[in-house]
Amino acid sequence: MAHRLAELAEIVDARIVGDPDTAIEDVCTLEQGRPGCIAFLANSRYRRHLAGTKASAVLVREQDADEAGNTALLIVEDPYLAYARIAALLHPEPEVPAGIHPTAVVAEDARIAPDAWIGPHVVIESGAGIGGRCRIDAGTYVGRDARIGEETRLCPNVTVMHGVTIGRRCIVHSGAVIGSDGFGLARDGERWVKVPQLGSVRIGDDVEIGANTTIDRGAIEDTVIEDGVKLDNQIQVAHNVRIGENTAIAGCAGISGSADIGRNCMLGGGVGVVGHLSIADGCVVTGMSMVTHDLREPGVYSSGLPAIPNEKWNRIAARLRHLDDLARRLQRLERKLQDED
Amino acid sequence: MAHRLAELAEIVDARIVGDPDTAIEDVCTLEQGRPGCIAFLANSRYRRHLAGTKASAVLVREQDADEAGNTALLIVEDPYLAYARIAALLHPEPEVPAGIHPTAVVAEDARIAPDAWIGPHVVIESGAGIGGRCRIDAGTYVGRDARIGEETRLCPNVTVMHGVTIGRRCIVHSGAVIGSDGFGLARDGERWVKVPQLGSVRIGDDVEIGANTTIDRGAIEDTVIEDGVKLDNQIQVAHNVRIGENTAIAGCAGISGSADIGRNCMLGGGVGVVGHLSIADGCVVTGMSMVTHDLREPGVYSSGLPAIPNEKWNRIAARLRHLDDLARRLQRLERKLQDED
Amino acid sequence: MAHRLAELAEIVDARIVGDPDTAIEDVCTLEQGRPGCIAFLANSRYRRHLAGTKASAVLVREQDADEAGNTALLIVEDPYLAYARIAALLHPEPEVPAGIHPTAVVAEDARIAPDAWIGPHVVIESGAGIGGRCRIDAGTYVGRDARIGEETRLCPNVTVMHGVTIGRRCIVHSGAVIGSDGFGLARDGERWVKVPQLGSVRIGDDVEIGANTTIDRGAIEDTVIEDGVKLDNQIQVAHNVRIGENTAIAGCAGISGSADIGRNCMLGGGVGVVGHLSIADGCVVTGMSMVTHDLREPGVYSSGLPAIPNEKWNRIAARLRHLDDLARRLQRLERKLQDED
Repeated sequence: MAHRLAELAEIVDARIVGDPDTAIEDVCTLEQGRPGCIAFLANSRYRRHLAGTKASAVLVREQDADEAGNTALLIVEDPYLAYARIAALLHPEPEVPAGIHPTAVVAEDARIAPDAWIGPHVVIESGAGIGGRCRIDAGTYVGRDARIGEETRLCPNVTVMHGVTIGRRCIVHSGAVIGSDGFGLARDGERWVKVPQLGSVRIGDDVEIGANTTIDRGAIEDTVIEDGVKLDNQIQVAHNVRIGENTAIAGCAGISGSADIGRNCMLGGGVGVVGHLSIADGCVVTGMSMVTHDLREPGVYSSGLPAIPNEKWNRIAARLRHLDDLARRLQRLERKLQDED
Repeated sequence: MAHRLAELAEIVDARIVGDPDTAIEDVCTLEQGRPGCIAFLANSRYRRHLAGTKASAVLVREQDADEAGNTALLIVEDPYLAYARIAALLHPEPEVPAGIHPTAVVAEDARIAPDAWIGPHVVIESGAGIGGRCRIDAGTYVGRDARIGEETRLCPNVTVMHGVTIGRRCIVHSGAVIGSDGFGLARDGERWVKVPQLGSVRIGDDVEIGANTTIDRGAIEDTVIEDGVKLDNQIQVAHNVRIGENTAIAGCAGISGSADIGRNCMLGGGVGVVGHLSIADGCVVTGMSMVTHDLREPGVYSSGLPAIPNEKWNRIAARLRHLDDLARRLQRLERKLQDED
Repeated sequence: MAHRLAELAEIVDARIVGDPDTAIEDVCTLEQGRPGCIAFLANSRYRRHLAGTKASAVLVREQDADEAGNTALLIVEDPYLAYARIAALLHPEPEVPAGIHPTAVVAEDARIAPDAWIGPHVVIESGAGIGGRCRIDAGTYVGRDARIGEETRLCPNVTVMHGVTIGRRCIVHSGAVIGSDGFGLARDGERWVKVPQLGSVRIGDDVEIGANTTIDRGAIEDTVIEDGVKLDNQIQVAHNVRIGENTAIAGCAGISGSADIGRNCMLGGGVGVVGHLSIADGCVVTGMSMVTHDLREPGVYSSGLPAIPNEKWNRIAARLRHLDDLARRLQRLERKLQDED
């Protein structure tokens, strides 16, 4: 259904430049702009596409408005946030059916809200609870005594082990595994003895967990993911980690056991966090860095190295191996010159 | 069924050294050579195994032929490629059964080719299309309106979300997730607002996708994997990435959103690619490197560091932290000596 | 059921300090100590929690005993190992049911031990064998001719491909894929030709495999995981790798093809191992390091870099790019000063 530009402006608190009656029925990118669609300009990288776009309207910041051609504009503080709101309005989530698919295997004593959807080949074990308007998609497994809060969606082929708690309005993407055993091993001579993993995983409200991400259950106490945390795909969260509210972590990051990550942090793709350390609220760690000590102050931290031509890199890597020697030699020269003075 | 060496020679366009009637019924390695089997020598690392092999025949390059003992030889330009052809001949893929397993849940309006195989506990949602001679293995999920091209195989426990298109003759290995939501988040104060992921994933022909690899759907436009791309296991491909024809990517690599990777590239294991950048056709990135800027010229790029004894490494890492200071001190010395001249 | 402290002391060969009749019915952490529970102190990081703990007893080393308050102590050589034993005693594994769930699809010629459990929606293909007291959980797939040894547990949604052998008393966590095709490709001009992956995977006894870990089948010979190996989550093991007895590997590590890893090694999180190399018995590789050459001697190896404030890191990374030049300049100065002498 098409909306008038004026309606959208009201929803995202925008100033209109152009015809408020412009009909908008979908979203588009600036570059692949289409009439009847609204685009956004958030990343200045794409500014050059603004003037020529075929979109009927564009969400822009005040300072980018000059660059526009004849297209209508919605001027907002945060075009990306405004876009998110408009896209959600134009693409409402499909209605969740209610009921239990006949091929699902649901324990007799599991409590399934009457308006929840349990898809084909789902398994819900004894004592589990599925909240109202939940959507448990095909092939997903919910273990004994697990609790899934209202309006949470478990996508196809998710695994939630026994005793795990997931809050309300969460989304767990396909292939994610929540509540697998932590990697707890004690050494007995040369052999390893398994340390029983007796804790669980507690996940707050409004958490999103990416495809094939794994979150291990705690050894004694629980692994804790607080409200509003957003985890991308293929992240590994070890036992007894705590991730604070509204922290977002990009794909392929690995968080070792008992790490305590604050609120409002952002960890880039492929970041590694060593176990038993603390990261303060508001820390940002850039891609492929390794956190090996407590980060006590908010700020941006890095240790990732940018790729350069291999031949040059090999020379640098070879020199690096002698950096200690190089530093000593410099010191010697400095002393020598001092002596001469 | 055994083949005469002469037949195999014809198939791979080889020159025979030895008895053309040698019977070959299987393949083997040089080191674990067995009579009746053909081996290959491609990596010079294994050359020492050539003379003593018990294989009945070996595929070798002209320049390695001298090293051989009494075994028959097939002399070819590319022994590994010739081996691939012969191995496929000796081990034909098992016939795919046709039909739908009674435990599969297939939407009434899904179009399943009559000679496709839909395995046990598969779920095919409404509007999906499965091409001829496809093989959809046990426990796999194919979402609403997804399209799977002819002769494509989805291994057990794969997840293909709604609207995804996969071409012909593809193989998707177990645990792969295609078309999960991209990691699109807009900030609203301290909270994250989900950006609807409205694009899809388009995968060309002859693509292979490794176990537990994830490919996210696009935010507005589609994520695109072109013909002949080969992805190893546990790779993360974010939304709106494009991977060009015949590019091969090794395990555990992570490609961030909107990265544009050219044709005929090779990315090593664990490589990370930052978002919104371009990699030219024919680029090679070595293992565990991080690509942070456009790679505009074909070539080999690196930033991975080789492990050395920890004690030595710790001294280097400590020195590295003072590299800026070290460089300044060197400069000071240089100036001082210049002044003295 | 509660145990007397004296009983526990006998099991773990401990000296008791305090009342041997203290009743212990569960375990706890030092910090979240609870009456009736036993805690342990293994990591000196947590020593400060010893004096104030509310646990009824604590497992400690002799040298830490002084720090304790009024709580009873079990003095042992290795508190963590003793804890593992006591936790297992207090939390015995639930009894495995026997039988085949009616929704499982089991080939007629598969051999299932009568006391094994085959869960809902499991698929067991033709010729497969499931040993006594095995537990094959919901949604798991066991391919043609695979063999699962006695008392092994495959958690929900595991994939075991055809011909794979898994030993006794193993645990394979959810989402793991064992026996997917190795990444074998030969180049034919610009296109890739698939190299058939004809080997399999052989896994010994007492192996634990983490959630979403992938182990590829061998190209010709098998990929081999020896007895007692412990693999964490999201590890990628490529074709023809061999991992020696009792080696433990942390999450997100990637092992490239034909790497040969010795016994009793420990690889940290995110470590990458290049293909076709050997790692000696007893090697330790610290987190996020890349092994690019044979490691011939036991020892600790590293190449991971610790994150520091981004601004400082950027200066260092920029200097690093000129390290070769810097080393040359230092050499020039040294020569100059030598000439002057």
